[in-house]
Amino acid sequence: MPTLCKPSVDVPEYVITMEETLQFAEETHRGKPQLPLALRLIRNTGVRKRHVVQPIEKTLRHPGLEERNRIFEAESKKRCPKVIEEALANARLTARDIDAIIFVSCTGFLMPSMTAWLINNMGFRTDTRQIPIAQLGCAAGGAAINRAHDFCTAYPRSNVLIVSCELCSLCYQPDDDGIGSLLSDGLFGDAVAAAVVRGSGGVGVSLERNASYIIPGTESWISYAVRSTGFHFQLDRRVPGTMEPLAPVLRRLAADHGWDIAGLDFYIIHAGGPRILADLSKYLGVDLDMFRHSWATLTEYGNIASAVVLDALRRLFEEDTMTPDATGIIAGFGPGITAEMAVGSWRAEAPAVPADALRQAVPVSL
Amino acid sequence: MPTLCKPSVDVPEYVITMEETLQFAEETHRGKPQLPLALRLIRNTGVRKRHVVQPIEKTLRHPGLEERNRIFEAESKKRCPKVIEEALANARLTARDIDAIIFVSCTGFLMPSMTAWLINNMGFRTDTRQIPIAQLGCAAGGAAINRAHDFCTAYPRSNVLIVSCELCSLCYQPDDDGIGSLLSDGLFGDAVAAAVVRGSGGVGVSLERNASYIIPGTESWISYAVRSTGFHFQLDRRVPGTMEPLAPVLRRLAADHGWDIAGLDFYIIHAGGPRILADLSKYLGVDLDMFRHSWATLTEYGNIASAVVLDALRRLFEEDTMTPDATGIIAGFGPGITAEMAVGSWRAEAPAVPADALRQAVPVSL
Repeated sequence: MPTLCKPSVDVPEYVITMEETLQFAEETHRGKPQLPLALRLIRNTGVRKRHVVQPIEKTLRHPGLEERNRIFEAESKKRCPKVIEEALANARLTARDIDAIIFVSCTGFLMPSMTAWLINNMGFRTDTRQIPIAQLGCAAGGAAINRAHDFCTAYPRSNVLIVSCELCSLCYQPDDDGIGSLLSDGLFGDAVAAAVVRGSGGVGVSLERNASYIIPGTESWISYAVRSTGFHFQLDRRVPGTMEPLAPVLRRLAADHGWDIAGLDFYIIHAGGPRILADLSKYLGVDLDMFRHSWATLTEYGNIASAVVLDALRRLFEEDTMTPDATGIIAGFGPGITAEMAVGSWRAEAPAVPADALRQAVPVSL
Repeated sequence: MPTLCKPSVDVPEYVITMEETLQFAEETHRGKPQLPLALRLIRNTGVRKRHVVQPIEKTLRHPGLEERNRIFEAESKKRCPKVIEEALANARLTARDIDAIIFVSCTGFLMPSMTAWLINNMGFRTDTRQIPIAQLGCAAGGAAINRAHDFCTAYPRSNVLIVSCELCSLCYQPDDDGIGSLLSDGLFGDAVAAAVVRGSGGVGVSLERNASYIIPGTESWISYAVRSTGFHFQLDRRVPGTMEPLAPVLRRLAADHGWDIAGLDFYIIHAGGPRILADLSKYLGVDLDMFRHSWATLTEYGNIASAVVLDALRRLFEEDTMTPDATGIIAGFGPGITAEMAVGSWRAEAPAVPADALRQAVPVSL
């Protein structure tokens, strides 16, 4: 059974607090009728601080799409290797053991994909499969886990590296002042994350079943407008209500696996905003505290897009309370509206068996 | 064994001939020192005509990235359903039978991906996996086939729809006048294509083994510069020489499968330009006529990016000369420099067995 090993996550050195965000918004959009609502929505996100790849003055300036994308490339190359090295170490593997790299990012666009640079510069084999995904937005973290699961199911001795590189601050659009855009300015943060799915062996979440779901007729609810200034985030006011139709989908996935969604041991949920967690708590009958890792990601880093599920999972590992066979669910949500979900159980370190004991355990009749 | 069924391909109604291309280039770039070389290179492509989604006057005008991407979206929605319907019919399946959609395109950017629109508008199930890939360029046709193969290997009763939507004319950059860019202006054409990989059953190429390969240190040889005007194609002069290092990789893949690369029955090769086919013929010891399907795609449609391998394969099906167990290779090449390769054999229609004969064939002792 493929195992999702401990993720590594890194956030950049520049920090913007909630108070600073509110202050910048007030200064930039003073007098606009939508400002009070935007400020209230930003306050309600619960995001206490975010980390960004540039100092605030540079973050707030738009240097043009070409320069933005150049920064995306430079920052990705600077920040991804560290989390990748750590994720490989967490999985007790080296770059040579990796058979496929799934690289997800919706905040910059490179062709060739970063996968080519990683292969050339980090010792991956020349036959490593490259699976770059740019168009699943925040759902791409769950999608990457699920596609890695599929790949390892096809080739049980293979290992897949997942990299999520979300530099959301490079999609800040100073001229956008719709409510959805203003809210997003106060919500998204930057982070890079990586994790390995091992086809066999490893400690972490044993991936047992995955599923995708699209809520019919909601394509336009979360989208990018692609303009000469780059990607413009567009958010429909109905998005915060989407857990009502998605909760039964999560419940069904657990039930298909013979599990009760309300009784799992861990919940790794894409915390796109606070209402996702509050509503899931309500509709699934799960105590809000069970979402503490997702909540911690949201409050400390903001919505870091596809990296949220990997960061919440890192926190679960670090809390170190899981026991063998603990059951759980991972769910990413994003444009579509798409949910990428997985259920699995905790796979602990195989107990170290002394060689003597092992020999004695082998039936003599063999 | 997963089977790649007959692709469906559609090219748009507007046609640009080689003579027109040369004439436009001469008019637009008159007096520039690089013009004579560019004209010679364009003549050498062998491309007799290309099809594009807009009349020539509109094709040559750049209306801005936002409008370009709007056209990409509208044309994709207009043109993809037809090839998808046909690909499903070729595989004797309906939209409800599809478990994953791999949508590849490097000539426009949508989020959500077109997969969301297809699911909502063409009767696909709400649990269809969405795998949009934008950053593998021309190699994405081969990559899509290989990832579909992997998915069906993991879930043998599943079916994967591949869609390639390459509207290369929407990446025409009137202000670019480097040699690589001018050559690309005379090389690329528009097409949409679709094909189904069936996990079981189906007629076509039984996918038996796949592989990826990146030529070390060639990331910058084929790339996009991402600017406020969109994607700018950049081509290194060393690219046409890449079949020399890739030919041994193709040979090894065949050998790993117990086959002699020089003795296969079909070769479906990404015809990025004429030299790819000439060089592969030389280095692999394969008669140039064996590449006739790729060559036909290049001369009649131009380089249609990730759709080339699907169109060449369509021509193989239509030629109707394959016999059961004929052996072959499929290879896409693109930025990285990346090769996505597969070997497989021809799976013919299961012979229709009359029910009576079937009953008689069952041993009585059962």
